[in-house]
Amino acid sequence: MDRKMRMGMVGGGQGAFIGGIHRIAAALDGEIELVCGAFSSDPAKSKASGAALYLPPERVYDSFEEMILKEKQLPLGERMDFISIVTPNHVHFPPAKMALENGFHVVCDKPLAFNMIEAKELQALVKKTGLLFALTHNYTGYPMVKEARAIVRSGQLGKIRKVIVEYPQGWLTTHVDNKQAAWRTDPMRSGIAGCMGDIGTHAENLAEYITGLKISELCADLTIFVEGRQLDDDGNVLLHFEGGAKGILHASQICVGDENNLNIRIYGETGGLEWKQEEPNTLVMKHLGKPKEILRTGVGNLSEQTRAHIRVPPPGHPEGYLEAFASIYRNFARTLRSVLKGETPNPIYLDFPTVEDGVRGMAFIETVVAANQSPQKWYQFKNV
Amino acid sequence: MDRKMRMGMVGGGQGAFIGGIHRIAAALDGEIELVCGAFSSDPAKSKASGAALYLPPERVYDSFEEMILKEKQLPLGERMDFISIVTPNHVHFPPAKMALENGFHVVCDKPLAFNMIEAKELQALVKKTGLLFALTHNYTGYPMVKEARAIVRSGQLGKIRKVIVEYPQGWLTTHVDNKQAAWRTDPMRSGIAGCMGDIGTHAENLAEYITGLKISELCADLTIFVEGRQLDDDGNVLLHFEGGAKGILHASQICVGDENNLNIRIYGETGGLEWKQEEPNTLVMKHLGKPKEILRTGVGNLSEQTRAHIRVPPPGHPEGYLEAFASIYRNFARTLRSVLKGETPNPIYLDFPTVEDGVRGMAFIETVVAANQSPQKWYQFKNV
Amino acid sequence: MDRKMRMGMVGGGQGAFIGGIHRIAAALDGEIELVCGAFSSDPAKSKASGAALYLPPERVYDSFEEMILKEKQLPLGERMDFISIVTPNHVHFPPAKMALENGFHVVCDKPLAFNMIEAKELQALVKKTGLLFALTHNYTGYPMVKEARAIVRSGQLGKIRKVIVEYPQGWLTTHVDNKQAAWRTDPMRSGIAGCMGDIGTHAENLAEYITGLKISELCADLTIFVEGRQLDDDGNVLLHFEGGAKGILHASQICVGDENNLNIRIYGETGGLEWKQEEPNTLVMKHLGKPKEILRTGVGNLSEQTRAHIRVPPPGHPEGYLEAFASIYRNFARTLRSVLKGETPNPIYLDFPTVEDGVRGMAFIETVVAANQSPQKWYQFKNV
Amino acid sequence: MDRKMRMGMVGGGQGAFIGGIHRIAAALDGEIELVCGAFSSDPAKSKASGAALYLPPERVYDSFEEMILKEKQLPLGERMDFISIVTPNHVHFPPAKMALENGFHVVCDKPLAFNMIEAKELQALVKKTGLLFALTHNYTGYPMVKEARAIVRSGQLGKIRKVIVEYPQGWLTTHVDNKQAAWRTDPMRSGIAGCMGDIGTHAENLAEYITGLKISELCADLTIFVEGRQLDDDGNVLLHFEGGAKGILHASQICVGDENNLNIRIYGETGGLEWKQEEPNTLVMKHLGKPKEILRTGVGNLSEQTRAHIRVPPPGHPEGYLEAFASIYRNFARTLRSVLKGETPNPIYLDFPTVEDGVRGMAFIETVVAANQSPQKWYQFKNV
Repeated sequence: MDRKMRMGMVGGGQGAFIGGIHRIAAALDGEIELVCGAFSSDPAKSKASGAALYLPPERVYDSFEEMILKEKQLPLGERMDFISIVTPNHVHFPPAKMALENGFHVVCDKPLAFNMIEAKELQALVKKTGLLFALTHNYTGYPMVKEARAIVRSGQLGKIRKVIVEYPQGWLTTHVDNKQAAWRTDPMRSGIAGCMGDIGTHAENLAEYITGLKISELCADLTIFVEGRQLDDDGNVLLHFEGGAKGILHASQICVGDENNLNIRIYGETGGLEWKQEEPNTLVMKHLGKPKEILRTGVGNLSEQTRAHIRVPPPGHPEGYLEAFASIYRNFARTLRSVLKGETPNPIYLDFPTVEDGVRGMAFIETVVAANQSPQKWYQFKNV
Repeated sequence: MDRKMRMGMVGGGQGAFIGGIHRIAAALDGEIELVCGAFSSDPAKSKASGAALYLPPERVYDSFEEMILKEKQLPLGERMDFISIVTPNHVHFPPAKMALENGFHVVCDKPLAFNMIEAKELQALVKKTGLLFALTHNYTGYPMVKEARAIVRSGQLGKIRKVIVEYPQGWLTTHVDNKQAAWRTDPMRSGIAGCMGDIGTHAENLAEYITGLKISELCADLTIFVEGRQLDDDGNVLLHFEGGAKGILHASQICVGDENNLNIRIYGETGGLEWKQEEPNTLVMKHLGKPKEILRTGVGNLSEQTRAHIRVPPPGHPEGYLEAFASIYRNFARTLRSVLKGETPNPIYLDFPTVEDGVRGMAFIETVVAANQSPQKWYQFKNV
Repeated sequence: MDRKMRMGMVGGGQGAFIGGIHRIAAALDGEIELVCGAFSSDPAKSKASGAALYLPPERVYDSFEEMILKEKQLPLGERMDFISIVTPNHVHFPPAKMALENGFHVVCDKPLAFNMIEAKELQALVKKTGLLFALTHNYTGYPMVKEARAIVRSGQLGKIRKVIVEYPQGWLTTHVDNKQAAWRTDPMRSGIAGCMGDIGTHAENLAEYITGLKISELCADLTIFVEGRQLDDDGNVLLHFEGGAKGILHASQICVGDENNLNIRIYGETGGLEWKQEEPNTLVMKHLGKPKEILRTGVGNLSEQTRAHIRVPPPGHPEGYLEAFASIYRNFARTLRSVLKGETPNPIYLDFPTVEDGVRGMAFIETVVAANQSPQKWYQFKNV
Repeated sequence: MDRKMRMGMVGGGQGAFIGGIHRIAAALDGEIELVCGAFSSDPAKSKASGAALYLPPERVYDSFEEMILKEKQLPLGERMDFISIVTPNHVHFPPAKMALENGFHVVCDKPLAFNMIEAKELQALVKKTGLLFALTHNYTGYPMVKEARAIVRSGQLGKIRKVIVEYPQGWLTTHVDNKQAAWRTDPMRSGIAGCMGDIGTHAENLAEYITGLKISELCADLTIFVEGRQLDDDGNVLLHFEGGAKGILHASQICVGDENNLNIRIYGETGGLEWKQEEPNTLVMKHLGKPKEILRTGVGNLSEQTRAHIRVPPPGHPEGYLEAFASIYRNFARTLRSVLKGETPNPIYLDFPTVEDGVRGMAFIETVVAANQSPQKWYQFKNV
């Protein structure tokens, strides 16, 4: 009989932000059940977190190491199928590596790792083990992002000429004294980039996902605006894509009053697209010499791939961030179920970010930081 | 130990729309688990539906009667705590009544019943049994609807003068030949009203919920635009509220090209509010002689009640229809857990539509239909 | 040789609002020159106003009577061709009548007159004299209103089913102590209606202009919200149109925080339209089962009539209220020039509101006031 | 006695676009009259154009040289006060120079000249003659641009950190075969830049006007996307401002489906602003941790400078491109009148772009073209 996929979680204890999001995302479609967790490096906090999630005490662990080892000893019909890693950046690699080495599939928050060395090691491990690995670049989970990708692929825009991708936030306009801000602005936990790693990578991933184009070289101007901060809180980047398209990517966490305004505009020879994360159910399609069309989830002839990512088919019932996030989990779970049953995964559900996207994101971080330091205008994209 | 609340579902088999929505809404927060169901009046279909939901075959029933009776025989630690009724209107009353009579709490889709007689009987039963009863007028679950209500209550708008509530949809612009349309346009399954029962009641509920005002009399002009249809597919209503406020309510299913455009505008002596379901995370606040303010989930000083209904606290992470729906389930589940533990429910979570709202909605339907037939301008609101 | 048309103005002295608007509207296209005026009932104020407009002192008169009589004595090549009446409602009729009786064409602000008796007399005079008469229902001068009308006429929407026309303003939310408010809320100067006469007539005119449908009966609920005010400051009206379309018209001057939000939505059997005066260069076109299109001035295939009312053809150069107003003057001037030259007017420019629209507007005022007082739901539209 | 200022026009004959715009802008406020013109280098076309504008034949000239010489011979009470130059870029300098040398004030379309040498010569001539010179960077004429500037100056935003100014258009997405496109894409008539000269300069001017900051260095990536075109049709530019602010400027004429989407976002330490030319009556003000405010012409406490640029004071009566353009003419005319009367100009009306802005714009063009060719990331702004 088919069953729900079993998830163990690393991180996401009480007071954390992203862990709760992952749990909702995993629960939403009724295809995954949370069976165990190591929710904090503080065992007491881990226990309390597990209890609040209605987990039996024996499945709440003091550390991810303990979880991986003990779960491995449980019978197949009971133990977790995969782990979900929702810790700060510097604690992505250790549990991911150990899980893969012990036969567990992995869902990991982005960016993939603390640096490229770790990233490459995970990439090699995934290849070697053949296990599934999903990276939660959640913004590509939105239905209208799928539709944008489908439209580009269909050729309706003609050859892509220009891409403008923006990600302004305002929450770090001043020095912020909370847990979320603390690790994101700390080079020991976040890595070599601040804003560019935290949200610039989402922008890069979104642009490449929709257009199917790869950035070939870039020119970067990163800034630390808030005094005392150690990592960039703002960055402006010019892009060259393979094939000749030009672009701009800018991301910021000091754009006072902006919320989470990831958005993208794509211009081709015969048409254009515009999508904004804060109004995610709308995709504007632009034509040469004809009125714009407002594409909406639930309206008209959307691609099969788009429709597979809409949960409320009648138009005008807004879906949001959690549903986009959930689509990554659902697609991962459905693919995993196929794999466990020895079936060929449905290509519709093979659509989630992988370790390859993670390596690409790490390369973006390393390139943009190096480019910023270079006096030369153009810097080759480093995809080691 | 705390545990998830256990839900049994009536209706919502494969091919249905709203059942899947209820399941997502119940699952989303990890506080409810689906343990059994009678998903269809067709036993084979019920079985198939249950299997697809990973339910054990013995908890998938052929009828709601069987479900209620057999679940009642299960030990307390195992049997369902409440039923969720997601059938067409004419099958709300029978399972609701039977559940209440057998000690099960109830969540029921709206409108409450097929007619006022049934509604009053359920109202009496809830009173008599002391069981919890939630009606899924889901649109009041949105955080910014909570905020609108809080702002009205705070007195910031002054005395309310005018309310405009709209609910135009376009999906029944022509004759539609599917399951959703079939029962909604059939007097034997939908009741005496079409559009007014299906969506007009949401508009009425939203207006009264936010303003705290009751409609005292109304003037109605209902129309059947599509030839051969038996129930209203459009209605324009003038409203008088207790205390002197005036209003307009219009709902339609023939507003071609409109999606699910429930929206409300409220004007008081010193300020106004505007909210649109299709952009639910925004609430426009209007002032006398000062710029409008754009209130947003996650930004600034929102009321405690509003914040308790936001799942993604950082601004700009859109939440939607499913989350609003889920808030009713979550609030119901948390209240139920308190009740089962013998504790006083948290007032924050006592915020869900009840059987009283359901009776009010039925009264609206009966009043608006009678008013439409009357040659007199004003017709008293019948709240039997 | 062709020449500019010569205008004499009645009213619009210093401190007035609408007079300056009319002057800009008349000047904008370079086809009309202001040659004389009686700008105020206070001769000193009239003189000062004329001097500020660079008029020679001998063409600035103490009263409209003096202006009409003295201008009539000037040679044909010098005297004014038409008068523009920009006084409060109760001073529309006297100068209009006298101008027509003395052979001058007329442009008059709306509403046409103080009451229906005056309106009918003007209608008869226009018919008798054969002179041109334009009423400045300026909102029909917008290009996208022309486009909406053209689309309805083309049959693209199918038969019209529903019309929602709104005109909420907020400027009379409290007692306002200025010249504009004073006469508009005074029955001696404004007539039997306040809000309904001032802006309700614009809504009525817009709806009938675009749809080509006539209101056949209506149901009205007018209110005076601000204590001490003598005329309605708010009104909600249900409409029946000839041919079966239904509608809602509401207008208000107590919608706090609203600006000048005239807007209209039209729904037919196969398509719909939406236009908002505050974003006048956009017209939303709705389709059955297909994405909305955003029609814009300057984009794509607009009707000839629309294009004739766009002054800045490249898209994205917003035109506004003054240009729409100017189109009435320009069309009037071009038609007048044809008439003066004995040529057949170009049908493109025959598109301005006439005395017939004015009578229709007066009938709307009288009907809506009577309907408000009636206990019956429906009241026949009185077009005496 | 006060009088209208007298304008002679160079260029703008039948078939031209911008000439008609200038004429409307000059006529709108009733402070300028067109008294003569040399509308085309083709004398017959000039005559026909003048006749259509109701000018007497003797004031319609065959060339700007003839116009300047003959007008100079007319008596002071009759001859033109200033010339308005609305020709393509390469014909700005000759009439401007000759006018200045013959004692006529000048209004000139932008960019100031064909190259920096001409620009500097004009700058010197203006200084030497003491005549007035206005450059029609019309977008700074909008009321809410004035308000943005006033807000920045007031310090409400704190120190400016980031400026994003965009100007995407789509009209040159493909090869376009009309008069407007022809000269703009021809290096012999347009100068060394295409898109950057035509619209990039507007973006530069807008950013510096509002913020009061000067660009100190920049990094440019210009592209010719349409095959066979000789000048840039797209450009992406990173900016450094004096004082440490960072920025992005991008302009394009191949952004298919975009209209005339000049817009700017400014972020300071404590607040931000956002303005879009296509919705010019709105200015979004952003705050740290508080709701956005929607500033609108006519609402609340706008600066005196802003109010002086609003013609329709009640809110919600949209003003547009022509009014913004007209404000330059009106301000120029009022300043000129003061000068002619020997009075000190009112500082309110001294607010129009001058020859200095024109030199700055030429420097921007030269800098951005040179920066594009440089392999170095940063290129000093050349303000010779």
